[in-house]
Amino acid sequence: MAEPITELVDAGDRPRVLVAGATGYTGALAARLVDEHAGLELVAVTARSQVGERLGDIYPRHPVPLEIEELDSQVIERADAGIVAYPHGAAAPVVAEMRGLGLVVVDLSADFRFLELPDYEKTYGDHGAPELLDGAVYGLPELDREAVAGAELVANPGCYPTAALLGLAPLVRAGLAEDVVIDAKSGTSGAGRDSGEAFSFVNVTENVRPYKPVGHRHRPEILERLSTLAPDGTAPSLTFVPHLLPIDQGELVSAYVSVGSEISQEELDALYRDAYGDEPFVDVVDSPPGVRDVRETNRCRI
Amino acid sequence: MAEPITELVDAGDRPRVLVAGATGYTGALAARLVDEHAGLELVAVTARSQVGERLGDIYPRHPVPLEIEELDSQVIERADAGIVAYPHGAAAPVVAEMRGLGLVVVDLSADFRFLELPDYEKTYGDHGAPELLDGAVYGLPELDREAVAGAELVANPGCYPTAALLGLAPLVRAGLAEDVVIDAKSGTSGAGRDSGEAFSFVNVTENVRPYKPVGHRHRPEILERLSTLAPDGTAPSLTFVPHLLPIDQGELVSAYVSVGSEISQEELDALYRDAYGDEPFVDVVDSPPGVRDVRETNRCRI
Amino acid sequence: MAEPITELVDAGDRPRVLVAGATGYTGALAARLVDEHAGLELVAVTARSQVGERLGDIYPRHPVPLEIEELDSQVIERADAGIVAYPHGAAAPVVAEMRGLGLVVVDLSADFRFLELPDYEKTYGDHGAPELLDGAVYGLPELDREAVAGAELVANPGCYPTAALLGLAPLVRAGLAEDVVIDAKSGTSGAGRDSGEAFSFVNVTENVRPYKPVGHRHRPEILERLSTLAPDGTAPSLTFVPHLLPIDQGELVSAYVSVGSEISQEELDALYRDAYGDEPFVDVVDSPPGVRDVRETNRCRI
Amino acid sequence: MAEPITELVDAGDRPRVLVAGATGYTGALAARLVDEHAGLELVAVTARSQVGERLGDIYPRHPVPLEIEELDSQVIERADAGIVAYPHGAAAPVVAEMRGLGLVVVDLSADFRFLELPDYEKTYGDHGAPELLDGAVYGLPELDREAVAGAELVANPGCYPTAALLGLAPLVRAGLAEDVVIDAKSGTSGAGRDSGEAFSFVNVTENVRPYKPVGHRHRPEILERLSTLAPDGTAPSLTFVPHLLPIDQGELVSAYVSVGSEISQEELDALYRDAYGDEPFVDVVDSPPGVRDVRETNRCRI
Repeated sequence: MAEPITELVDAGDRPRVLVAGATGYTGALAARLVDEHAGLELVAVTARSQVGERLGDIYPRHPVPLEIEELDSQVIERADAGIVAYPHGAAAPVVAEMRGLGLVVVDLSADFRFLELPDYEKTYGDHGAPELLDGAVYGLPELDREAVAGAELVANPGCYPTAALLGLAPLVRAGLAEDVVIDAKSGTSGAGRDSGEAFSFVNVTENVRPYKPVGHRHRPEILERLSTLAPDGTAPSLTFVPHLLPIDQGELVSAYVSVGSEISQEELDALYRDAYGDEPFVDVVDSPPGVRDVRETNRCRI
Repeated sequence: MAEPITELVDAGDRPRVLVAGATGYTGALAARLVDEHAGLELVAVTARSQVGERLGDIYPRHPVPLEIEELDSQVIERADAGIVAYPHGAAAPVVAEMRGLGLVVVDLSADFRFLELPDYEKTYGDHGAPELLDGAVYGLPELDREAVAGAELVANPGCYPTAALLGLAPLVRAGLAEDVVIDAKSGTSGAGRDSGEAFSFVNVTENVRPYKPVGHRHRPEILERLSTLAPDGTAPSLTFVPHLLPIDQGELVSAYVSVGSEISQEELDALYRDAYGDEPFVDVVDSPPGVRDVRETNRCRI
Repeated sequence: MAEPITELVDAGDRPRVLVAGATGYTGALAARLVDEHAGLELVAVTARSQVGERLGDIYPRHPVPLEIEELDSQVIERADAGIVAYPHGAAAPVVAEMRGLGLVVVDLSADFRFLELPDYEKTYGDHGAPELLDGAVYGLPELDREAVAGAELVANPGCYPTAALLGLAPLVRAGLAEDVVIDAKSGTSGAGRDSGEAFSFVNVTENVRPYKPVGHRHRPEILERLSTLAPDGTAPSLTFVPHLLPIDQGELVSAYVSVGSEISQEELDALYRDAYGDEPFVDVVDSPPGVRDVRETNRCRI
Repeated sequence: MAEPITELVDAGDRPRVLVAGATGYTGALAARLVDEHAGLELVAVTARSQVGERLGDIYPRHPVPLEIEELDSQVIERADAGIVAYPHGAAAPVVAEMRGLGLVVVDLSADFRFLELPDYEKTYGDHGAPELLDGAVYGLPELDREAVAGAELVANPGCYPTAALLGLAPLVRAGLAEDVVIDAKSGTSGAGRDSGEAFSFVNVTENVRPYKPVGHRHRPEILERLSTLAPDGTAPSLTFVPHLLPIDQGELVSAYVSVGSEISQEELDALYRDAYGDEPFVDVVDSPPGVRDVRETNRCRI
C-alpha cells in the first residue's frame, strides 16, 4: 500500500517508485534516474511490450537490473509513487488508476499540463480524466518550487516549454516582453523510438529542417504558462517554430523578444541573476551556450 | 520497340532507358545518373508506390523531371534498355519480362550475380528466372570490361563485393592470397528507405557496431568471384564481418591477407599499378584512403 | 592577354579562367566547378602554399588535374577571367592587379560587396582598392541578372546574405517587411580549413550554439542590400543571430517578418512565385525545406 | 603530507587526490570522476595553461568547482595521491616528483606501461625516470586486480590495449590464439584538444579512414602484455590497424583470431564467461556490441 511520501522522507525511508512505460526513451531514462538516486527505490518497471525482458538488456548503457512487468493494480500497490511515461491520451487513465490507489504520480505526458480543459481538447482531443486537472501541479520547480514539492499529481512540462519558460520568465514577470519569436532547435530522440523514415539516419544527418511551423502543440502550453506569469495575466504574442537537428539529445531555444521599454544590459543581467542565482540547475552565462555543455545533464544554460 | 544498343550508339543515337523501382535509394540514383548522362535518354521511371508523383519532388537535390509510372509492357516497350532496382527475388521476373521484350537489362539486385544456381538458392531462396542465369555477366568492368560491354543482361555486383574484389583481385590472380580477413565498414543508406528502428538517427549516431558476423549474403558472392580469378580455381579462405557506421553513404573495406610467399612492397605496388594503372575510376594510393575522398562519386581508392 | 569575355562567348570560344587561392574550401570548389563547366577552360590554379602539388591530390573527390602555381603577372596574363578566393583585405590588391591586366574578376571575399566605403571600413577595416568599389556589381543574379552579366568586377555575396536576401526580397520590394528576425543556421565548412579547436569534431558533433549574436559582419551587408530593394530606400529593422550546426555544408535561414498590413497566404504565395517562378536555381516550396534537399547543389529552396 | 592510502581507507578517511594536466580531455575526465566519487576528495587540479580559470567553466557539462593551479611541490604535498594526465615523455618527471613526495600515482601516459626499457625507447624515445619502471603496475584490474590494488605507481593502459587485451586474454591464456588481426575503430576525442585540421568536423564527419597501418604505438604495448599472458610466454603474431570514425568517444576493437585447434562455440562461451563472469565492468554478450551501448561509461562489452 502506498505511503505518504513526505512522511517517508521525514522518517528517512526511501519512497518506492514504479515507472510505467519504461521501454520508451523517456520512461527508460526515468527508470535509470530513479535507480541511481540514493533517496529512491525503484520497485517496478512496466510496459505494454517486451514484458519479461531485463530493462538493462534493452538499454545497456545504464543497466537497470529489473525485468519489465505488465501494469496491473498489484504492481501499482507495491509502490508509493508512480512515474507515467505514456503517450498523451493513454496516460490519463493510468494516472487516474494510480491516484485511486493512493500513489503520488509524476506524469510525463501532456495530459495534465493545461490549466484549462478546452485548451487541452483543442490541442490533443478528448481527456481521459478531466476531474484530476484541477489538482495537477505544473512541474517546473524554478517557477514554483513549493507547489511542486507538495503536489500529489505533477504534470511534467514539455521539452520546449521548459526551455522557453525558463528563458522568458524573468522578462515576462517584469512585464517587459511584448512580441516573442522562438526559434527552437531539437535533437531527434524527442520523436521517440518508433519514429519512422523521417527520423532515419540518412534523413537526419547533414540536415536541418523546420517542422510544424504553425500549430505545434507546445505553443499553447507555453502561452498558458506565460499568462500566469505576466503581471496583467496576458501572454505576449508568440511565434514558435521548431527545427530538427542532426543531434540525438538536447535542444536550444533561441528567443527573440521585443521589449516595451528601454532596458540596459546591466538591468537585464540583474533580472536573470536575481531569478536564477540560487537555482542549482540553471546557469546564467555571459557567452552564448551550446547544447553540448549540458548534454545528458539536467542543467539549463541561459 | 527496343533497338540494339550497340547499333544505336554506333549510329550516334541515345539509347532510351527505363528505371524500374525508381523510388528507392538505388533506383533514384540510377535515374539521376541516366538523366544527367549526355549519351543516354531517360524515358520512364516506374515504381509500385507514389505513382503520379514527380521523382524530383521526392528527391529534390537532383530533380529528375519525370513522373512515376506503373510498370507494364507498354512502358517497357518505350525503352531500349532497363535498369531494375527491385529487391532480390522480386527482380528476376521483371528482368525476364524486359528481356522478353528485347531490352538490354542491368539488374541491381542479387538475382543474377551468382554463377551457380545452388549458391543462389542457399543464400536467397527460390529463383524466379533461373534460365537467364547463364547469360548474365557480372558487372564489374575492371575485371572483364569486354564481357560487360557486350552483355544483354548485366548483374550489378553488391557494394561489399565491388570493393572487396577490386582490392583482392591482383593478389588472388597472382596466386598469392591464402587467408583473407575482411573488416567491412558501411554507411547506413545501404539499408534502404524503410530500414526501421535499428537505422534511426538515435541508434546510429555516435555508434559503430558489427552485424551479421556469420553468414552475410555478400560472402558467398565474393567467394564465387574470387574462385574465378584464382589460377587454380580455388578461392582463399575468407572471414567477412561488416560494420555499420554513422555516415550516410560510402564504405571502406579493410582486407587483411596472409600471402603464401615473401613479397616486397615494390612488387606489391607494381602488382596493383599494373592492374589499375589504366582504370579511370580506380586509384591506387600510397596513404590510407578515407571514404570522404570518394563520397558521391563512382571512384574507388585502394 | 585577356580577351573580352562576351566576344569570346559570342564567337563560341571558351574563356580561360584562373582561380587564385585554390587550396581553401571556396577556391577549390570554384576550380572544380570551372573545370567541370563545358563553357569554360580552367587554365591555372594558384595559392600561397602547397605550390607544385596537384589540386586533385589535396581534394581527391573531384580531382582537378592542375598543379598549384604561384600567382604572378605571367600567370594572370594567361587568363581572360579570374576568380579570387582570398580572405577579405587580402583580396582587394589581387583583384586590382587582375583588373589592371584586363581580366574580368569574380571576387569571393567581402572586399567589394559594400556600396559605401564607410560601411566596409567599419566592418572590415582599411580597403586595399577603394577606387574599384564603384564599378563592382553585387553577384546575386536573382536580384539583377543583367547587371551581373555585364559586369567586369563581380562581388560574390556572403553565404548568409544570399539566403537572407532571396528569402526577404519579395516582401521588402513590396514594402511589406517591418521588423525582421533572422535565425541563421550554418554548417562548419564556412569557417574554412584552419578553423581551430572550436571547429574540431569533438566540439561540433552533438552540439548547436549561437555565435556572434551581436555584430556579425553579414548584418550590415544584408541591410545595405535590403535598403536598395525597399521602395522608400529604408531597410527594415533587423536582428541577426547565426548558429553553428553539426553539418559540414549548407545553411538554413529562418526569417521571421512582421508585416505592416494584412496579407493572405494566397497573396504571399503569389508574391514569391512571381519573383522566382522563372528562376532556375530557386524553388518556392509549400512544405518547410531542409538543407539536405540542396546539399552540394547551387539550389535555394524557400 | 601524503598518507598511506590503504590506511586512510581502512580508517574511513577519504584520500586527497590531485589531478595534474586537468585541462586536457583525459585530465578533465579524471578530475570529474574523482570529484563525483564518494570515497575520494579532489583537492587540486593543475595545468600548464589556463591557470586561475575554474575547471567547470572550461568543461561546463560536469562543473568541477576547483580553479586551475600551477603544479609545484606545495600543491603536491596537499595530496595523498596524484593522477598525471601529461603527454608521454612529459609525464615521467612529474610522476617521479610526486613519488618522491610520497604520493601514490596513477599515470595516464605511456611512460610506465612497458615492462622493458628498450621497448619503450624504441617506441617513444628517451625515458625520464627509468628507475621507476620496475615498480610500476599495469592498471588493468581484470588481468591482476590484486597487483593494481597494492600498487604505488599505476600505469594506466592505452585505450586500444585495454579493449584488445580484455578481448584476447581468455584465448591467449588458454594457449589458443595463433594469428591475430585487430581492426580497431576509434572516436576522435582520443586525439586530444589541439588535434588540428585532420580532426576538424569537416574532415571527420561522413568519413572513416585507417591511420598508422604500420607502427602504431599501441601494438608493442599489446604484444608485451599478451606475452605475459601466454602459457609459453610468446605472444601470437599480431596485425594492428586503427581507424578513425566520426564519433566523439568510444572505440570498437574487432579481433580476428585463428585458433590452433578446434574449439566449439560452447567452449568459447565458457572460456569468456569464466574469465569475466564476476567482473562488474565487463559484459560478455551474445550479439555483436555497439560502442553506443557503453558510451560515457567505464563498461566494456565483448
